Amino acid sequence: MMIEWVGLDADDTLWHSENGFVEITARYVDLVHPYAGGLSRGDIERHLTRTERANLAVFGYGVKAFTLSMIESAATVTEGLVPATTLRDVQRLGKELLQRPVELLDGVVEAVAAISETHRLLLITKGDLLHQETKVAESGLAPHFHSIEIVSEKDPAAYRQVLRQHDIDPSVFLMVGNSVKSDVLPVIEIGGRAVHIPYQYLWDAEHAEHDGSVPELTSIKELPSWLAAQI
Amino acid sequence: MMIEWVGLDADDTLWHSENGFVEITARYVDLVHPYAGGLSRGDIERHLTRTERANLAVFGYGVKAFTLSMIESAATVTEGLVPATTLRDVQRLGKELLQRPVELLDGVVEAVAAISETHRLLLITKGDLLHQETKVAESGLAPHFHSIEIVSEKDPAAYRQVLRQHDIDPSVFLMVGNSVKSDVLPVIEIGGRAVHIPYQYLWDAEHAEHDGSVPELTSIKELPSWLAAQI
Repeated sequence: MMIEWVGLDADDTLWHSENGFVEITARYVDLVHPYAGGLSRGDIERHLTRTERANLAVFGYGVKAFTLSMIESAATVTEGLVPATTLRDVQRLGKELLQRPVELLDGVVEAVAAISETHRLLLITKGDLLHQETKVAESGLAPHFHSIEIVSEKDPAAYRQVLRQHDIDPSVFLMVGNSVKSDVLPVIEIGGRAVHIPYQYLWDAEHAEHDGSVPELTSIKELPSWLAAQI
Repeated sequence: MMIEWVGLDADDTLWHSENGFVEITARYVDLVHPYAGGLSRGDIERHLTRTERANLAVFGYGVKAFTLSMIESAATVTEGLVPATTLRDVQRLGKELLQRPVELLDGVVEAVAAISETHRLLLITKGDLLHQETKVAESGLAPHFHSIEIVSEKDPAAYRQVLRQHDIDPSVFLMVGNSVKSDVLPVIEIGGRAVHIPYQYLWDAEHAEHDGSVPELTSIKELPSWLAAQI
């Protein structure tokens, strides 16, 4: 079947995101390390990752969830020795990450404009509703999309619902994103296709493997010609 | 025009919500008061409300935003004297509020079932995406709704988009909820109708007045017969 609809992930597919988490995590470790007894920087970071994972079901994805996990992990890993002023600084790190300007990946504007000439586009992303909407608006890309879909989890049920809502048969749908776990596997499971475009960093909880049959591009710049070759 | 579509707000219209914030705020003040110098409980609560309002544009609505504001306000109002372990307890209060079981308002199940026989229903709510979805699922009410719409702000633009998406003319749409600011005024502004059903508590940032022409019911139990009388 011909591809008629293209779904694009946003964080780390259209704009940089994980690099911000990486930078803020390093500054978080700087803040907490002096109060963490003999723990190494690696120990502090691993404790934060474990805390994030444990909180996922209650907090969901996004920067607010991450910030609440940083505060919990800092208090726990220092056995309460971290000063309140430092926890306030950790909360400020979260606020800073939420207000970080959107930085598009190289070639995104041209690629999205080109694809919107030949296909109908959906933006499908997960995380904080307000933060994702703010980034979409700031990106200037919204006019190219038929619809913006912000979901709480990118699982087969969520993709099924988005496609049903727009009356799209999975056989004419292609999803493009940086996460095998969120952008590739669930879409293949419901009968759609996927293209994987890895990003420089991948959050721990997003690690997954596919069977090797999924096309991989090195940049979204290659997507228009890849799509043209699918006829 | 006849009402064909009914939009229902969720928090404090279908289930209790603000009472949870009121309870958690009281426990927050208990935790912070011993470290707040000579400040009264009222001072501490007002500082929290100011902090929440100042953070609205960045954090948006919902429990995670509220929790991050509690942590910020506690550190500020005590000039850093609150112990980290207490801030960790404040973070736990937020987690508890997120996991509070859904408690439906009196008569909701029967009213929603009755209205769904005569009208098409939308649930329109704002706040944390995951938390709202979790509450909808837990409520058991989802099957009565044509669609569940979770938005970041209930303003005229958001209502316009929801109605456009479902191809609904505002003249056949009625919104029902406890907030004049979020459920009544923006809907009237776009040419729809509204019914106001006040709740026991109203969050500070939701205060607004209408011109007196908006029908007010004391309970959602009265809604089916009110709708039947609109022919």
